[in-house]
Amino acid sequence: MLTTHPFDDDKLREECGIFGVSGSDSAAALAALGLHALQHRGQEAAGITSFDGHLFHTHRAMGHVAGNFDRDEVIRSLPGTVAAGHVRYSTTGETALRNVQPLYADLATGGFAIAHNGNISNAMKLRRELVRRGSIFQSTSDTETIIHLVATSNYRTLLDRFIDALKQIEGAYSLIVMTPEGMIACRDPLGIRPLVMGRLDDAVIFASETVALDVCGATFERAVEPGEMVIVQGSEIRSIKPFAPVSPRPCIFEWVYFSRPDSIAGDHSVYSVRKEIGAQLAIEAPVEADLVIPVPDSGVPAAIGYAQQSGIPFELGIIRSHYVGRTFIQPGDKVRHLGVKLKHNANRALIAGKRVVLIDDSIVRGTTSLKIVQMMRDAGAAEVHMRIASPPTRHSCFYGVDTPERAKLLAAKLDLGGMTDFIHADSLAFVSIDGLYKALGEARRADIRPSYCDACFTGDYPTTLTDQDDTSVVDQFALLAERVN
Amino acid sequence: MLTTHPFDDDKLREECGIFGVSGSDSAAALAALGLHALQHRGQEAAGITSFDGHLFHTHRAMGHVAGNFDRDEVIRSLPGTVAAGHVRYSTTGETALRNVQPLYADLATGGFAIAHNGNISNAMKLRRELVRRGSIFQSTSDTETIIHLVATSNYRTLLDRFIDALKQIEGAYSLIVMTPEGMIACRDPLGIRPLVMGRLDDAVIFASETVALDVCGATFERAVEPGEMVIVQGSEIRSIKPFAPVSPRPCIFEWVYFSRPDSIAGDHSVYSVRKEIGAQLAIEAPVEADLVIPVPDSGVPAAIGYAQQSGIPFELGIIRSHYVGRTFIQPGDKVRHLGVKLKHNANRALIAGKRVVLIDDSIVRGTTSLKIVQMMRDAGAAEVHMRIASPPTRHSCFYGVDTPERAKLLAAKLDLGGMTDFIHADSLAFVSIDGLYKALGEARRADIRPSYCDACFTGDYPTTLTDQDDTSVVDQFALLAERVN
Amino acid sequence: MLTTHPFDDDKLREECGIFGVSGSDSAAALAALGLHALQHRGQEAAGITSFDGHLFHTHRAMGHVAGNFDRDEVIRSLPGTVAAGHVRYSTTGETALRNVQPLYADLATGGFAIAHNGNISNAMKLRRELVRRGSIFQSTSDTETIIHLVATSNYRTLLDRFIDALKQIEGAYSLIVMTPEGMIACRDPLGIRPLVMGRLDDAVIFASETVALDVCGATFERAVEPGEMVIVQGSEIRSIKPFAPVSPRPCIFEWVYFSRPDSIAGDHSVYSVRKEIGAQLAIEAPVEADLVIPVPDSGVPAAIGYAQQSGIPFELGIIRSHYVGRTFIQPGDKVRHLGVKLKHNANRALIAGKRVVLIDDSIVRGTTSLKIVQMMRDAGAAEVHMRIASPPTRHSCFYGVDTPERAKLLAAKLDLGGMTDFIHADSLAFVSIDGLYKALGEARRADIRPSYCDACFTGDYPTTLTDQDDTSVVDQFALLAERVN
Amino acid sequence: MLTTHPFDDDKLREECGIFGVSGSDSAAALAALGLHALQHRGQEAAGITSFDGHLFHTHRAMGHVAGNFDRDEVIRSLPGTVAAGHVRYSTTGETALRNVQPLYADLATGGFAIAHNGNISNAMKLRRELVRRGSIFQSTSDTETIIHLVATSNYRTLLDRFIDALKQIEGAYSLIVMTPEGMIACRDPLGIRPLVMGRLDDAVIFASETVALDVCGATFERAVEPGEMVIVQGSEIRSIKPFAPVSPRPCIFEWVYFSRPDSIAGDHSVYSVRKEIGAQLAIEAPVEADLVIPVPDSGVPAAIGYAQQSGIPFELGIIRSHYVGRTFIQPGDKVRHLGVKLKHNANRALIAGKRVVLIDDSIVRGTTSLKIVQMMRDAGAAEVHMRIASPPTRHSCFYGVDTPERAKLLAAKLDLGGMTDFIHADSLAFVSIDGLYKALGEARRADIRPSYCDACFTGDYPTTLTDQDDTSVVDQFALLAERVN
Repeated sequence: MLTTHPFDDDKLREECGIFGVSGSDSAAALAALGLHALQHRGQEAAGITSFDGHLFHTHRAMGHVAGNFDRDEVIRSLPGTVAAGHVRYSTTGETALRNVQPLYADLATGGFAIAHNGNISNAMKLRRELVRRGSIFQSTSDTETIIHLVATSNYRTLLDRFIDALKQIEGAYSLIVMTPEGMIACRDPLGIRPLVMGRLDDAVIFASETVALDVCGATFERAVEPGEMVIVQGSEIRSIKPFAPVSPRPCIFEWVYFSRPDSIAGDHSVYSVRKEIGAQLAIEAPVEADLVIPVPDSGVPAAIGYAQQSGIPFELGIIRSHYVGRTFIQPGDKVRHLGVKLKHNANRALIAGKRVVLIDDSIVRGTTSLKIVQMMRDAGAAEVHMRIASPPTRHSCFYGVDTPERAKLLAAKLDLGGMTDFIHADSLAFVSIDGLYKALGEARRADIRPSYCDACFTGDYPTTLTDQDDTSVVDQFALLAERVN
Repeated sequence: MLTTHPFDDDKLREECGIFGVSGSDSAAALAALGLHALQHRGQEAAGITSFDGHLFHTHRAMGHVAGNFDRDEVIRSLPGTVAAGHVRYSTTGETALRNVQPLYADLATGGFAIAHNGNISNAMKLRRELVRRGSIFQSTSDTETIIHLVATSNYRTLLDRFIDALKQIEGAYSLIVMTPEGMIACRDPLGIRPLVMGRLDDAVIFASETVALDVCGATFERAVEPGEMVIVQGSEIRSIKPFAPVSPRPCIFEWVYFSRPDSIAGDHSVYSVRKEIGAQLAIEAPVEADLVIPVPDSGVPAAIGYAQQSGIPFELGIIRSHYVGRTFIQPGDKVRHLGVKLKHNANRALIAGKRVVLIDDSIVRGTTSLKIVQMMRDAGAAEVHMRIASPPTRHSCFYGVDTPERAKLLAAKLDLGGMTDFIHADSLAFVSIDGLYKALGEARRADIRPSYCDACFTGDYPTTLTDQDDTSVVDQFALLAERVN
Repeated sequence: MLTTHPFDDDKLREECGIFGVSGSDSAAALAALGLHALQHRGQEAAGITSFDGHLFHTHRAMGHVAGNFDRDEVIRSLPGTVAAGHVRYSTTGETALRNVQPLYADLATGGFAIAHNGNISNAMKLRRELVRRGSIFQSTSDTETIIHLVATSNYRTLLDRFIDALKQIEGAYSLIVMTPEGMIACRDPLGIRPLVMGRLDDAVIFASETVALDVCGATFERAVEPGEMVIVQGSEIRSIKPFAPVSPRPCIFEWVYFSRPDSIAGDHSVYSVRKEIGAQLAIEAPVEADLVIPVPDSGVPAAIGYAQQSGIPFELGIIRSHYVGRTFIQPGDKVRHLGVKLKHNANRALIAGKRVVLIDDSIVRGTTSLKIVQMMRDAGAAEVHMRIASPPTRHSCFYGVDTPERAKLLAAKLDLGGMTDFIHADSLAFVSIDGLYKALGEARRADIRPSYCDACFTGDYPTTLTDQDDTSVVDQFALLAERVN
Repeated sequence: MLTTHPFDDDKLREECGIFGVSGSDSAAALAALGLHALQHRGQEAAGITSFDGHLFHTHRAMGHVAGNFDRDEVIRSLPGTVAAGHVRYSTTGETALRNVQPLYADLATGGFAIAHNGNISNAMKLRRELVRRGSIFQSTSDTETIIHLVATSNYRTLLDRFIDALKQIEGAYSLIVMTPEGMIACRDPLGIRPLVMGRLDDAVIFASETVALDVCGATFERAVEPGEMVIVQGSEIRSIKPFAPVSPRPCIFEWVYFSRPDSIAGDHSVYSVRKEIGAQLAIEAPVEADLVIPVPDSGVPAAIGYAQQSGIPFELGIIRSHYVGRTFIQPGDKVRHLGVKLKHNANRALIAGKRVVLIDDSIVRGTTSLKIVQMMRDAGAAEVHMRIASPPTRHSCFYGVDTPERAKLLAAKLDLGGMTDFIHADSLAFVSIDGLYKALGEARRADIRPSYCDACFTGDYPTTLTDQDDTSVVDQFALLAERVN
């Protein structure tokens, strides 16, 4: 109910969710269930690859898991006891099927399938060099770079080649790899994107979030650690740490918005953290009001926290329709602007004459906040106070999150007064960066080596951003790519 | 967000929603918007008919409004300033396209299109007689009976023929009719099913619920009264009451579950009534507990009411996934029973060790309650107390609601103790029938002529049930019908 | 190979083929085979209705038999030992699925399904009267008129009602009717449209042409006679002749073009008749030439006859592609006019420098003849002589054949010289009307009561044309009809 | 009409047709027209790639050209003045979209698209070596080997890399390549597969057959010569011959069956050659008979030749339906064996009591001949004499033709008497290999360096067959390949 995407077009979007299972007779079915639970992390395409001991089998499809992977014949077409799956957003129009993961290649060491959550920040530079040496790319995905690095590595074993490849890449990556010898799950040294590990009877399961374990009936064991590589070969499980150790920097936005509230991330219940952010917000930015109203669905936990801390009643002032498709009719100018009410409708009888506190998880472009404040006023609200359960989002993410370019981020353009005016609220407040760290159990954000990647709020990027500094790569790339219709 | 259908397979289902607009250049687009807002009343098929002054145009489709009526070419294929639409459930497998409304016929008086919410309880008897006289039915819908009665009426004008037809039928009907002369909206003498009227500039709009007015930006004017017929011809609006007056008996289940919480029905905010039922439940059936947890989404308003009345904190203990398709994979026995978690997942970190009060709107078969109590226990709940925001559902509905046969209604088979055992709860309580009437502002249910149809709780049916007493009709009907593949 | 539709857009089109089988365990499968063999008589839609002793089952589809009725699940959805099928052209845009036959109705006497080849020439007048009395039509098909006449007949038995209905209609009809009591096949008193009868083991089969018997492995027994009604009830077969006897007038165009060459029609091999027309043409209109070239495929038999009679070699001078879809790209003006070569290509190496005789079955608008003469000249033909294996087509058909309005028929506008100029041929000749009758074994066309309906050549219509004389009916009809998108 | 595939399941199948155009504003539309004319060379998939001066655009689809490439939006999605297209059969189940050509790759030298007709007989050996060095294949097509050889070549310019690649491959290849610099068309040194060149205004066109030029309105200029590489850059055309010269060996089966009769191949009209083969057959294997009957459609030209030479009348004794889909219903044993009549029907009235000579182009498995002889006998033929317009097919093809394994070729298993018995004919004769060469204008087949590749008749393969001798490659390949569902 709270999970996801209320005003879908004005949110940061996690670009991927990944899932792997080794050692189950129902491997593909579990992968389908797990991907379903991770659907909020990527809704544009999904894929599952299985290995039956001899052959790899893959089904990819544009669209949701349900409708594509809920048919018996699809599951039957994916035999074997090992399977990996992926859900994705596209960042550009290029959501061709060939970009849908898991990606697969026939290497000299045998078949190789890979599912990736994150983004490689020197992918284009590496690609240019690989093409120069004769590698042919079949997708426009950064993930394929890893495969070619493995294919052309001078090391002998697949594991050595894989480590060799990872040492050349920068950025964020949680990976699940399938080879004829077994499954490898690993997480980049900073642990920017999440990856957890669970058990279901004799099977080992890896997933982006614990909810994917829950849906399978599996037990949550532990997170895969930053820089760790877990290797599953039949019933044997090994862990190695091939990278030089560094302080982890997991993405803090997982607790703000990306993860489902019923997930456990880094020892914290996501729901509890969000309630605590709401409580912090009530302490930092109190206001006299009659009702606390969440912007559905992602604002609900913080709104409950705000209401409990402030004593102002929590009420459902905005009703969300369950039947929203991606787009709807826009016949004339008169009809077009009814869009917001189609997805959300004010609970007019409740709101009329009241002072309301609206709680949302974040502001990206601000266009939705503007509409929702107006919706409250149209319903007769006496005052509208907006409270945001994250600091102002001022910087783009280059680690696998779909962010608008900086110039479109409201908080990158305007100060608090400007933003308040822009959305026409009576008041506006964001939780402080320290308040956010408090909700996660820390005293405040450390100046040196903070515990999380919070670059979208602070601009403090934990890795170099090679491709960002070399736009020639981008241009050349755009020029060559074949467009498949 | 709270609207509808959490555990979809164990609910009573409203079978239809209807919408009509006269006098707008965007008639079909408004109908599409309105039907979208009424989608929770019928998700299996939808249709819109428009009239362009010369010709009637109809588009019907299986499935949701979105995906079928959100395309420009569909709206453009429905020209004219008058339009009517319909969303429906099928009660049987017979959701052939020919049963999708609005139904249309070429009569001697000209084209005639009709959209119906309700059920005619002597339809089969009338149909048998009409066939005997040479009428040919094209659908298996009870609504078509009305059309043939109009077609074969001995009166001269369309209006007289229509009144003649309605006087022969029993049961529940809110109707929107289109003819070349204008639009007619009417409601049966008891007003069993809802119908409201609104304005958008010069256009008149009729709809099953006020949310359909909201989504169009229209103003809610008033309900169409029980037994009233509103006739719109260009800018002229007339009202007539051709039936003998009786005490109204609107369906009380609209406030319990069918209507969206943001609708206004019979002068009551549906949301407020539901909160008040929750409060009554807290008064009638208090319990010591740590958390009040709604069964999402329909249990949320009552849970808020229960929490505010009892002082026990409201928490989201069950997270509902937005990505649920109609069915999902059921490969082996091991995987099949994970169904519930796919749709809903316990917020384990919140629940473990706590005494919880679960709030749901109703119990039909009880299968869902059983699963959800078990889900709480699996998540470590110390105690699970179930509270239901309606009286026990003991009788089938014959007025346009899809109810299981009586033998499958849990409350028709077991007493309170039996039901408590069946769902494995620590305690179970239903709001009393008087408590329900109190939430609607009455002192208690009147013994004589109560203000609502509450037959599903009391067995007190406000009309005769002709077809129910004559099973020969049903059998003959089943024998003849052509099956279209 | 010769069957059909070379330059498809410039031919008269038979509008329907019908098929019925009673007494076979494979009834629906045989119907699918039979309709496949009749596909050239109607390519836009097909339907099959079966009766399993209790229920009627129908599958209808737009498009070809193959692709729609060649799937096991479709055949399995049509159980029973009795089945009827239909293939159709649409004459207007109104090829909605509801017009696809067999049509079905629940009558007081039980289920009633009907498949019709032909056209009722007073259908609109009858329809107006039926609507006035309260009948509701679900299609815009003339065939439905028959059903309503049966439904509202005052006779008691189904057979009496059916005869009562037929006595009220004018025009052309070969009909196959299914009722719970049995199958009825009948042909109008003039026998305008064909209908034959065959046997396969214990099963009785009716079909528009004998090829449909061949494809089933059935034996051709005899034609259903003009004015005859054959009634099959289980193993009992009865024949009645309820109409006043008149001289038959079967459509002569069946031998010219409609029927497949491998059919037997009226004791004549269609192939032999066409060869004989070609021979007559060689006698009536000889020419010095090097090659006889058929316009594929329908001109082939006449070309063989012409070649054998004249001694000029028969050669394939035009090659037809098998891969022609209904439409093809028409991007710019330069590309659009290549259409003809896409379907047919001149065998340039054969034609260059030669005097060619082109043989085609008929000329309708003349647009194709123009193109094909030009194609010969572009390929280097020294002379191009066009010979047509039917008399000039000067009149529209109102008996179930899709003819352009008279003003578009080339022979209705121009004399022989004008036509020769129009198509740019060196010479042009049509077989004479007496020559056509000679090919059918008669000495010449009788002035009084000729043996065939040849109205398209002579304007001598064998029935009254009620609806043609009362355009008000048409207009009213057009005004009322609902358009289903 | 004569073109192709009468009894489709018992023919050798050309696996591909290719088309290229440079210098036309309608490049993609011309490619669609051209592929349509080449459809008989490959019916399972088609693709077109265009180049707009900056980007390459590709559309690939399973199925026919019509239905996939006849839509405006597809043609509009393929902008530019240069385009190449491909139609293909699949030899195995692996007709995934990724195998549909043109194949495309981003090389260091820029985009590279390739369309291939033929088969590389050492592709698997090369592939194994390339994978060992780090190349990743995206298809299972032999054509991709060429791309990787180009990508990893040590030469600098694209042209030198391409020549370097071709020098490493063995087998049959007609290729059309697109690069940002221009189009390259080339043919293997033996010229096994055809490739012709034409002009349309300023545009240059390459195609497998001249019919593809005809359909575009282009002029046939000349064949691309064996071993020749034609390079088109803007308006400049260059020809180079990078290979050591050898005697050409074009595939003789193009004249027997593959090419359309209206094509010109190697200075011969295909139609005339086929007629001449029929005449040779009449000389070599005369018989007393009443009728010469072609097996439609491919037997028609030889039958005309046979009839003219022998004086026995040519007649259409088998009628082919135009409406044959790929498969049709096979419900029970009784219905299944009617398959042949569904596609072809005997012209019974013509055949009964007659001695017939059946003319077919070739015998592969013999299953069709068996059925068609039986069909003649069932229709009452007094005698059935089968004459085949090619020598016995005794060997598999490894140059891009789909042949059954040798053990399934009738002529590889039985001698003439055995074959005659197998098909139940009264007599059977094949044209001699020398008779075949005579029809092509030679005195007889030369013992040393014959003018054509006739390996399917003689077993005399003009190249080494590397992969055939190394089955380990095949096995390894099969093991690794991912199956995409």
